[in-house]
Amino acid sequence: MALLSVFTPVLAVVLCLVIGFVLVKSWDTETTSTSPGKSKGATKGEKRPWLDQDLQDDTEITAKEDDDDADDDWGDSAEEENLTQLPYSPQRYPEETMLQRSKEFYTLMNQRRSVRFISPEPVPREVIDNVIHTAGTAPSGAHTEPWTFVVVSDPDIKHQIRLIVEEEEEMNYRQRMGEKWVQDLAKFRTNWIKEYLDVAPYLILIFKQTYGILPNGKKKTHYYNEISVSISCGILLAALQNVGLVTVTSTPLNCGPKLRLLLKRPANEKLLMLLPVGYPATDATVPDLKRKHLDDILVHV
Amino acid sequence: MALLSVFTPVLAVVLCLVIGFVLVKSWDTETTSTSPGKSKGATKGEKRPWLDQDLQDDTEITAKEDDDDADDDWGDSAEEENLTQLPYSPQRYPEETMLQRSKEFYTLMNQRRSVRFISPEPVPREVIDNVIHTAGTAPSGAHTEPWTFVVVSDPDIKHQIRLIVEEEEEMNYRQRMGEKWVQDLAKFRTNWIKEYLDVAPYLILIFKQTYGILPNGKKKTHYYNEISVSISCGILLAALQNVGLVTVTSTPLNCGPKLRLLLKRPANEKLLMLLPVGYPATDATVPDLKRKHLDDILVHV
Repeated sequence: MALLSVFTPVLAVVLCLVIGFVLVKSWDTETTSTSPGKSKGATKGEKRPWLDQDLQDDTEITAKEDDDDADDDWGDSAEEENLTQLPYSPQRYPEETMLQRSKEFYTLMNQRRSVRFISPEPVPREVIDNVIHTAGTAPSGAHTEPWTFVVVSDPDIKHQIRLIVEEEEEMNYRQRMGEKWVQDLAKFRTNWIKEYLDVAPYLILIFKQTYGILPNGKKKTHYYNEISVSISCGILLAALQNVGLVTVTSTPLNCGPKLRLLLKRPANEKLLMLLPVGYPATDATVPDLKRKHLDDILVHV
Repeated sequence: MALLSVFTPVLAVVLCLVIGFVLVKSWDTETTSTSPGKSKGATKGEKRPWLDQDLQDDTEITAKEDDDDADDDWGDSAEEENLTQLPYSPQRYPEETMLQRSKEFYTLMNQRRSVRFISPEPVPREVIDNVIHTAGTAPSGAHTEPWTFVVVSDPDIKHQIRLIVEEEEEMNYRQRMGEKWVQDLAKFRTNWIKEYLDVAPYLILIFKQTYGILPNGKKKTHYYNEISVSISCGILLAALQNVGLVTVTSTPLNCGPKLRLLLKRPANEKLLMLLPVGYPATDATVPDLKRKHLDDILVHV
């Protein structure tokens, strides 16, 4: 007992240290758990630094009390319940015509390819406007229409976009290669040199609005905003193909915040996609890729 | 000192308890951080129990070493680098024709509405096949084509789907109302009674494949799989509208796992959307919603 008493002060100090450690630790955990979006980004960042952190949907960060619109049927918003119902009778085609139209649309869309070789020839701005107007007809969660399409034709801004994208891209590739392949960088140089960002007459930058601001100043979360905007992009791609223009779908790695600032977009908007748009270059090529057969994507039950 | 020595055993016990607590705590944290997708789901679950946890993209859970395809240009996969390049010269239209086509496509798509009142009349299966074939032409991250379209026409399966969806829906609404509104449930009954799931000749359930299996048995993460499949859905909606069929975009709350099991889909597939498809009912109505003006979604720079 006398021997033990010598250790009492030591024990007391150790106890204090351990308690202090526990407190710091639990504070850390708390910080992490109250910002799941950020912590997720960080986790990703460690594991796969080249993945686009800006694509994280920060819906969980911005969740507030205005959750009336988190329905599964995208039209079923609280707002909609008070709206007048109108009769709806769209055009109906005979079966033969339906079949014909479905085949023709498939043939048209099946000719679409991602094209990196874009001609600098000018494209009528009204066509681009109509294409984006078409994209804006997409359905969206609770009819929030959470999209902003920024169409860049100014050569200086296009070039600044290119510099931002290429800088990040080069970093991404170097990091990957340092980690995994350690091969000749030159082989992949084409992957981060994006000439089309200067050359294409238009760059369409598509932002998702992760939340809106209500008249009372509160944030209103836009549920499913990323899915909604992606659906809208699908319709946009169809509209481009329909007029004979080409693009390549890209989700610029980590460039979202810089591009948002460059284009002076508000804080609730996050870059989802960047589409360079124009006619294909006369010497454009595409890789000899095949698509899956219908049987590999369709199951009848 | 003598007094302190009395407390020595007590201090020792407290120290043991605290150390034990720290160990348990750090194990918890570790478990959480190695499954960010799950922890995120849980966090969401607490805050907003009616939000669809199955919509979580579990890409981070399934991330393995096969990360060669996490490029930003969706065609730039490692695979593609070895492919032959083919000349690409799609149809080119005169400016007047482009303008005309862009207007017509806008007019067609602008007539699309989410319709909950679907006619039971049969629809030719070949039309549905062509529509899904069209959806399969969408671009996808690293050309993974991470989609499965399950087309349900069997009345029994449709009814089972309805039961699963309605059960979850009712729970969701009751939970919300318990928490927030405590109003007459009957008012919202229409929100969880989904007659169209029995009535529509087809239910299209769209699954995203969160990962694939490589020949060596390893998992291959499908980056951007949710965005890719959503783009594909956008093209699918355009294809439906093009043949005069209607649907309502829905993301069934929490039903994903049950529906996946019912339809015998593999573990790498997660339900993203459920679309009931058919002709509109003769007495179909839609709420008097307006779309944003072009100026509110488009910014020229």
